[in-house]
Amino acid sequence: MADAVFARVAIVGAGLIGSSIARAARDYGAARQVAVLDASPQVMDRVRELGIADETSGEAPQALKGADLIIICTPVGVCGAVAETLAPHLEPGAILSDVGSVKGAVVAQVAPHVPEGVHFIPAHPLAGTEYSGPDAGFASLFQNRWCILTPGEDADPRAVARLDDFWTRLGAKVEAMSADHHDKVLALTSHLPHLIAYNIVGTADDFGEQTRSEVIKFSASGFRDFTRIAASDPTMWRDIFLGNREAVLEMLGRFNEDLSVLQRMIRRGDGEGLFAFFTRTRAIRRSIIAQGQDTAAPDFGRRKSD
Amino acid sequence: MADAVFARVAIVGAGLIGSSIARAARDYGAARQVAVLDASPQVMDRVRELGIADETSGEAPQALKGADLIIICTPVGVCGAVAETLAPHLEPGAILSDVGSVKGAVVAQVAPHVPEGVHFIPAHPLAGTEYSGPDAGFASLFQNRWCILTPGEDADPRAVARLDDFWTRLGAKVEAMSADHHDKVLALTSHLPHLIAYNIVGTADDFGEQTRSEVIKFSASGFRDFTRIAASDPTMWRDIFLGNREAVLEMLGRFNEDLSVLQRMIRRGDGEGLFAFFTRTRAIRRSIIAQGQDTAAPDFGRRKSD
Ligand SMILES: NC(=O)c1ccc[n+]([C@@H]2O[C@H](COP(=O)([O-])OP(=O)(O)OC[C@H]3O[C@@H](n4cnc5c(N)ncnc54)[C@H](OP(=O)(O)O)[C@@H]3O)[C@@H](O)[C@H]2O)c1
Ligand SMILES: NC(=O)c1ccc[n+]([C@@H]2O[C@H](COP(=O)([O-])OP(=O)(O)OC[C@H]3O[C@@H](n4cnc5c(N)ncnc54)[C@H](OP(=O)(O)O)[C@@H]3O)[C@@H](O)[C@H]2O)c1
Repeated sequence: MADAVFARVAIVGAGLIGSSIARAARDYGAARQVAVLDASPQVMDRVRELGIADETSGEAPQALKGADLIIICTPVGVCGAVAETLAPHLEPGAILSDVGSVKGAVVAQVAPHVPEGVHFIPAHPLAGTEYSGPDAGFASLFQNRWCILTPGEDADPRAVARLDDFWTRLGAKVEAMSADHHDKVLALTSHLPHLIAYNIVGTADDFGEQTRSEVIKFSASGFRDFTRIAASDPTMWRDIFLGNREAVLEMLGRFNEDLSVLQRMIRRGDGEGLFAFFTRTRAIRRSIIAQGQDTAAPDFGRRKSD
Repeated sequence: MADAVFARVAIVGAGLIGSSIARAARDYGAARQVAVLDASPQVMDRVRELGIADETSGEAPQALKGADLIIICTPVGVCGAVAETLAPHLEPGAILSDVGSVKGAVVAQVAPHVPEGVHFIPAHPLAGTEYSGPDAGFASLFQNRWCILTPGEDADPRAVARLDDFWTRLGAKVEAMSADHHDKVLALTSHLPHLIAYNIVGTADDFGEQTRSEVIKFSASGFRDFTRIAASDPTMWRDIFLGNREAVLEMLGRFNEDLSVLQRMIRRGDGEGLFAFFTRTRAIRRSIIAQGQDTAAPDFGRRKSD
C-alpha cells in the first residue's frame, strides 16, 4: 500500500459520516492513526466496542495530539461551537476540515476560531444513507462518490492537495468549487428534493388514520421512494435548511412556478403540454445512468431484496 | 399445480404490464392458453420472438375466440376505443378487465361498450417499473404486490371471485374498493409523487447547460431518486393526469398548502418547527418497512449494483 497521506486523523463526531471516515482511513491506509472524539459517552463506548479507532479517550487534548488532519463530522449547527473547543489543541500546520452538507454557513461559523498556522479547508462528501450513528457507517461509503472541497481563495495549495489525496485514497472523486457555488448546486440536487419529500410525506400524515394506513399499504406505487428520503436525520436537515436558507428559497420559488404551470395543464386538460413535459425529463435520467450516478436496474434493483 | 383459473386469457396491449401478465399466467398456470393482441405490428413480432403467448395472429376474432378473461393493458386514454373494437368478439359469460392506473375514467370509457352477458370488472395491479414495452415485462412482477379490483355495485360476485383467484395465482394480494376511492388513494400514493418528481426534474432542466450538467454529476445527493420516477412513460402519465384530474388537483392543493408552511419556517429560521416536521415523517417510513412494502436496506440496497 502507498504511504499514508496523514500521520493522524482526528474525527470529531462519530456518526454515519465520521465513523465511515474512521473505518475507511484505516482500511485504505489514508492515515497511520485514527483518533475519534464524540460529545456523547454512549457514542464513544460504541466506537470502542466497534474497534474502529486507535485513540478513543474522548478527550480533546489526547485526541488532537499529533493530528495533522482534523475533520468535524457533527451536525452543521454545532460546527462553530465545536471549532471553538478544538482551537486550543490544534497544532500549527494541521489541516482542519469538515463534512457539512452546507458550506457557506460552516465557513461563517468555523473560520473565526481557526488559529493562525492551521489550514481550514471545508469539504462535503456526497455520500450517505438515510441512517445515522456509528453503527450505520461503513468503509466503502465514499467509493466512487464525489467529495467537494471549498477552499478559500487564500488557501495553501499544498494543504488542498493533501486533503484531495486523502479523499481520493478513500475512493472519492474530488472536485473544488467556491462555498457559494456549492450551496447553490446542492440546493437543487439535494436540499430541495429532501424538502419536497418531507413535505409530501407530511401531507399524507395529515390525513386521518384510515387514509394514512392505506397510504402505507399502497405506498409501493411511488410514494415509498419519498419516504426513504424523508426518513433522514431531522437534526441534520434542520441545520441544512437553516444554513442554506437563501439558495433553498430561491430554488423553491422556481419549483413552485413550474408546478403551477403543470397544475394549469392538468386543470385545462392540456394533454399535449403534459406529454411534452413528461418526455423532456427522461433525458436527464439517461445522462445520470450514463455517468454512473445511479443504477439502470428497474426500481433501483431493490426487487432482489423484496 | 392447481387447475388453471381461466381456459384462455386474452391480453390486449403487450407492454410492460400486458407482457408480464402473459408470462405470469403461463408460468404460474393461471390460464390454460394465453392470446396476445397489440395494435403495433412490431410489438406483435416481438411477442412472437419472445414466445410468451399461444395465440399471436394479431387479429381480434382469433385472439378472443374462447377467451373467458380479456384484459385491456393499453394506455388508459385508448381503453374506450379498444373496448369498442373488442366488443363484437366478446363471448357471453366472459370477464372483461383492465389494468389502468386510474379507474373512474376507465369505467366511464369502457362500460358503454360492454355487451350484455359480459362481466366488466376493472383492476389495477400496483406493480411496475420505470420501463415499458414487451421486453421490460417479467413473470414475477406481481409477486407480493397489491392488485385492486373495483367492481361495480351490481357485479356478479362469482366473476369477481374468479378474477381475484387469477391475480392471487399471479402472486398478488387482492383488495376490492370503489373506483372513486381507488382514484383518491392513488392520487396521493402515486399520482402526486410522480407529478412532483416530474416537476423537480423539469425545474433542473430549465437551468442552463452548465447547471444541468452539474445537477447530473452531483445527482446522487437526492435528486437521482426523483429522476427514476420522472423517467416513466409519458403517454401513460399524460393519460393518468387527464383521467384523475379532480383527485390530483385536490391533493396538489393540500401539498401546496403544506409546502408554504415549510417555506415560511425556513424564511423565519424556525428550527424547532422544522425539527418537529422532519421527525414526524420518519414514522411513516418505519410502517412501510414493517409492512414489507419496501426494503430497509440503506439507499434501497442499490449500492450492490453501483
Ligand atoms: N448523512 C448524510 O447523508 C450526510 C452526507 C454528507 C454529509 N453529511 C454531513 O455530515 C455531518 C454528520 O452527519 P451524520 O449523518 O454522520 O450524522 P450523525 O450520524 O447523526 O452523527 C453526528 C455525530 O456527531 C455527534 N455530535 C453532536 N454534537 C457534537 C458535539 N458538539 N461534539 C462532538 N460530537 C457531536 C453526535 O452525537 P449524538 O448522537 O450524541 O448527537 C453524532 O455521533 C453533518 O454535518 C451532515 O450535514 C451527512
Ligand atoms: N407501468 C406501470 O408501472 C404500470 C403499473 C400499473 C398499471 N399500469 C397501467 O398499465 C397500462 C399499460 O402500461 P404499460 O406500462 O404496460 O405500458 P406500455 O409498456 O407502453 O404498453 C402499452 C402497450 O399497449 C399498446 N397499445 C397502444 N394502443 C393500443 C391499442 N389501441 N390497441 C392495442 N394495443 C395498444 C402499445 O403499443 P405501442 O407500443 O405501439 O404504443 C404497447 O405495446 C396503462 O393503462 C397503465 O396505466 C402501468
